[in-house]
Order: sequence, then C-alpha cells, then structure tokens
Amino acid sequence: MKNTDIPLQLESVKLSEDKNSVVIIDQTLLPNRLEYINLYTPEQIYEAIYSLKVRGAPAIGICAAYGMYVSAKKLDMSSYEDFYKEFMRIKVFINSCRPTAVNLSAALNRMEKAVTDNKNLCMPDVIALLEKECAAVHEEDILMCKAISGYGLSLVSGGDGILTHCNAGPLATSKYGTGLGTLFLGHELGYRFKVFCGETRPLLQGARITVFELERAGIDTTLICDNMASAVMKNGFINACFTGCDRVAANGDTANKIGTSGIAVLAKYYNIPFYVFCPSTTVDFDCKTGDDIEIEFRNPSEIKIKFFKEPVAPETVKCYNPAFDVTDNSLITAIITEKGICEPPFYDSLAKLLK
Amino acid sequence: MKNTDIPLQLESVKLSEDKNSVVIIDQTLLPNRLEYINLYTPEQIYEAIYSLKVRGAPAIGICAAYGMYVSAKKLDMSSYEDFYKEFMRIKVFINSCRPTAVNLSAALNRMEKAVTDNKNLCMPDVIALLEKECAAVHEEDILMCKAISGYGLSLVSGGDGILTHCNAGPLATSKYGTGLGTLFLGHELGYRFKVFCGETRPLLQGARITVFELERAGIDTTLICDNMASAVMKNGFINACFTGCDRVAANGDTANKIGTSGIAVLAKYYNIPFYVFCPSTTVDFDCKTGDDIEIEFRNPSEIKIKFFKEPVAPETVKCYNPAFDVTDNSLITAIITEKGICEPPFYDSLAKLLK
Repeated sequence: MKNTDIPLQLESVKLSEDKNSVVIIDQTLLPNRLEYINLYTPEQIYEAIYSLKVRGAPAIGICAAYGMYVSAKKLDMSSYEDFYKEFMRIKVFINSCRPTAVNLSAALNRMEKAVTDNKNLCMPDVIALLEKECAAVHEEDILMCKAISGYGLSLVSGGDGILTHCNAGPLATSKYGTGLGTLFLGHELGYRFKVFCGETRPLLQGARITVFELERAGIDTTLICDNMASAVMKNGFINACFTGCDRVAANGDTANKIGTSGIAVLAKYYNIPFYVFCPSTTVDFDCKTGDDIEIEFRNPSEIKIKFFKEPVAPETVKCYNPAFDVTDNSLITAIITEKGICEPPFYDSLAKLLK
Repeated sequence: MKNTDIPLQLESVKLSEDKNSVVIIDQTLLPNRLEYINLYTPEQIYEAIYSLKVRGAPAIGICAAYGMYVSAKKLDMSSYEDFYKEFMRIKVFINSCRPTAVNLSAALNRMEKAVTDNKNLCMPDVIALLEKECAAVHEEDILMCKAISGYGLSLVSGGDGILTHCNAGPLATSKYGTGLGTLFLGHELGYRFKVFCGETRPLLQGARITVFELERAGIDTTLICDNMASAVMKNGFINACFTGCDRVAANGDTANKIGTSGIAVLAKYYNIPFYVFCPSTTVDFDCKTGDDIEIEFRNPSEIKIKFFKEPVAPETVKCYNPAFDVTDNSLITAIITEKGICEPPFYDSLAKLLK
C-alpha cells in the first residue's frame, strides 16, 4: 500500500452512521493495510483495546465512551435499576482491559455520571445524554490536541531535531495528537523539523504508526531502533525529546510506553530537554508518585514471535514484557497540557494549573 | 528445533578436515536451525562475515585467518612475488568487509607477517607456517577467553543479576566467550546468576544467540527488548552490565554493538557497574579516542524488513542504521582483558598493562 493512496484525514475512532457500532482503524495492520472495523459489543470493544487495534491513551478513552453508548442502547430499559446494573457490569468489564492509562477509566466515569446524574429522566433521554457525552469526550479531545500543540510550539525552533517514542499522533488521539501535535502544527506553519522516531519494541508503534503519520504530512522522518537513541543524541541530531503519556502522578512521575524512562535518562545525560505531552485528564492526583501507577505486563509472544517470520528466540526463554515504565519527575523538563505548560517542581505546578 | 537436540560443545569456526575450507555455523539461522557451511573462496569468506553468518569480533578474526590460509593454498606458487601480490589482494579484500572490529585486521596482519617474515623459505614451508599461524590465532583465543572469564569472576557474586547486550559468547569467539565467559565459568562453579539479555535490534543477536547459549548452559535467562534496560535497572534486577567490544581506543573509549553507549549511560545513572570484556588485541593504541574509530553503517532493510512477515515501516522512510556506537570511557567501570583488569583512568591503565 502506498502512503499516498490513503486519504489525508484519518479518524482512528468514530461512531458509525447508524450509531449502532464504533468504527475504528485496525492499527495492528498499519502501515501495510488501512482497514476500518466495526465494534458492536462490549466483547468486541474489549478485544480491540486489549489487542491494540485501537491504542493511544486518548483514543482508548474515546473508543470506550462510544462503546458504552452503543452497548447501553441495546440494554433492557424496562427499569432504571436493571439498566444501571447491566451498564455497570459492562463498564467494569471494559475498564479492566488495560490498567495503566487513566483515560480509559476517566472516559467511562464520565459516561457513568451521565447516567447517575439523570436517573430521574426517562430512558430515551438518558440514552440521548450518553450520546452527547461520548461525542463531548471526542470533541474535547480535538480541542485539547490543538491547544497542546500550540503550547508545544513555544518550546521549539524551526529546523530542530526531535526524538519521538511510541506514538502520540492523530491515530492515538484525534486530529493533531498530543506528543506529535506540535510537529504537525509546526510543519503547517513552516517549521522544518527533522524527526527521529524510535521504532518502539515490542509492538513497533513508532515504526508502524508514527513514521506513517509523519511521512504522510511531509515531515522529514528517520526511523531508528530504540537502542540508537544514545547515538543520535551523542551525534547532536536531537534538540528535544517528545513523548505522550498514559498517566502522570501528582509529583510529575510519568507512566508511558516502555523505554520512555531510558530516553529521559539519556536526554538528561546529553543535556537535551525531555517534554511530556498530555491532556490534563491524564494527571491522576490520586496517584501520589509513580509507585502508585499500575504497570501492565503483556504476553512474551509479543517479544519472541509476533511480527516475525519465525521465532527470534528459543521458545523456552522467559521474557520480561512490561508495556510501560515510569519516568522520574526529575528527568522531565516540562509537562505540556491543554491548559498550559508545567515546569518543576511538578507537585506544585500541576496542582496549581490543573487541580 | 529444540535446544536440547544440539550438541553442547559448538565451534563457531574451524578448519575442515581436508583443510580446504573454513567450516562455520551459520549464525543467521539460530536459534531455529543449526547448520554448518563450508567456505572455500575469499568471496565466500567475505560474504559470510558481511552478512553476519559468522560474527563477533574474535570469531571474525579466526574466520579471516583460516580464510587466508585456505585461499593462499590455492594460489600460484611459482614465484614469491606473484604469490605475495595475490595474497595481499585477498587480504585487502577480506579486510574491507567490516571496518569497526580491530580483530579482523589484526588477524589478517598476523597472516601477512607469517608470509613476509619467511620470504626466504620455499612456498610449501610458507603455507605450513600459515596453517600454524591461523591455528595459533584460534588457540590463543581459547586461552584468552578462559583468562578473561577468570578475571571477570572477581567482579561478581553468586546470585547477581547481569544485563548483557548483543552476543560475546562462545559463538562470537571460541569456548567461553569474552563478555559472557564469566557467566559460563561462574555457572560451572555454582554461581547462580540471573541474566537479562537485551534482544539487540536490529539483528537480534541477544535474542537469537545469547539466549540460546545461556539457556543451553542452564543459566537463568530472561529476554528483554533493548528499551526495557532502564526498567530492569530501576527495579533493582541488575547488579552489573557485561558487554564485549569491537575496538577500544587508547583512552578507553569503546566501540561495541549499537546500543551499548545507552546502556552505559543508564548504568551510570542507576549506579550499576558497567564492564567491558575483550582480548588485549582489541585495544587499538593507534586510535587516540573514540572519534578515531570508524563506525559501520548498514542497510535500512535490516530495520524495516529483515526477520518480519511484512515490512514494519513505510517503504519510503529513511533509516539511520549504525552497527556500532562508541561508549565514552567515563561511563566504563573497568575493561577486562586476558592480561588483567584495567580501571580508570584508562589512558594510563591500558598502556601500562598492554603496551
């Protein structure tokens, strides 16, 4: 598939026209195939999120919100109590599929609130409010991405070399993305970035998705293996590191795709700023530090077998496969949200701006 | 292929029984298939080294030395001048196939010296001396590995968690290996290491070869993606990092597999010792610093296509694919050679021990 064969505006998640399913791009097939799939049931929503067909903290939130809406519509509405009980069963089920990103539970909590705040209304009105709520989650995400991207621009200059990790672009969110939003917006405005994308093992979101998105936009893009980050920094190719994130603790400790903390250590050593981009909802004041963030562990086959023609390691070997790691707040130069830029000490700056 | 189906003692490089070819294990097929291939011509030697069928700095040196011998035997020996001219053409050709490891040129230089020091002898005697010389390169490597492994033991304790990168085991050298030698020797002596192997993108020598070797020896082995190094260090799993190397400058700057410098930066940050293991011949006093070491760049297809069922990045994207990086001497705790252990400042300790 040629990159140019694909329409420029892609939407990773949307409601189907008949409003009975969630339409997503199956991101596991990129960059080789662009396929949309429809998700009708809670089980399909769960599977799509778990298997990373839809991925990226904000996109997961949007997908889950739409998923609650299409699932709720099909419930027995003869009594509020029965409806709510079944609604909550689905909510808990979908919420259990990935633990680290806060966006999933945040979006689901909003949907629950749309129900519990309006239990005095008739059921069709509750369903209408649910539709409004999931559309709002989506629309706010678009505005959030634009605002983050604008703030991010104040941190870079034309011609800058930027190192990215994993994918926090349009497909992980909506429109511009978070971690990549500054690059898309800046490129539109004539900044000429030189972007180095870490491939992001084991699931290669950097190689498969970030590169795909940046090249489509005409941005100068170079793919590296994750272990080349030190070499490109040492050679002076990198002026700043950009990542998204899945959950930020009150003190600024940040959970993001595995490998992020290593890049942050390298950036500190090479005196390169390390920026984290996220919606304000990603900051979880209930987590005091990174130690309170649950890290998801995934299947060893992702390291040894997936993607490969044949296994790349003996079948017997143990694998350690955390999906995320926590970057210590002392390694982070700034956290950029749609409400502004937070600098250290984050415990104060995050609370002041966002609480 | 089950690991247990394979004989325990493997020789990565040897001379064939009829002495007309070099027999190597095709390491690109591991861990799924164990196949020996015979190399008869300079072109086959070149291709085997270039394509990493035989790899690891010491093993490349041994293969090249044997390769010179089997090639020299087939030359026209009617005049020394013609023989020497042709011998040198082959030497320059084989020497050109990979630039970074010093062992290749060091072994070839020894073979040349066996010719030039004995130009007064008859040709069959020169050929006999060449056979002796390549056998000596091999035998000295075995002794070197044993000595390095012994010195390495003084740096570790039973139960230590060790992080390895790439492969510096028996298949990269002979017998014990360099960077892994301490682990094999220690395991024989009852140390119970817990070894974490970085998979080593793009060519996965860690996943394919180090894991294969360690598991066969019964060592507790866990495979990680390279970008998980920070997480395992942060979690306290690692007591020391072990790597081999391809060339060491006079000041201790060390070229090794891409990614090594990043691990060294992380080790420094997490206060974990970082050890480099190599034969004394890997120290190149003609290189004053790491800036003098030529870094080999390899084909982008290694990142995007090789090993995979389908490409993992858009075909158009540029790739940056250095095979090695240089680790600054300030990040290295000690360099372990067969002659002893060098500590900082390396400019003095290397010269004192090895010059």
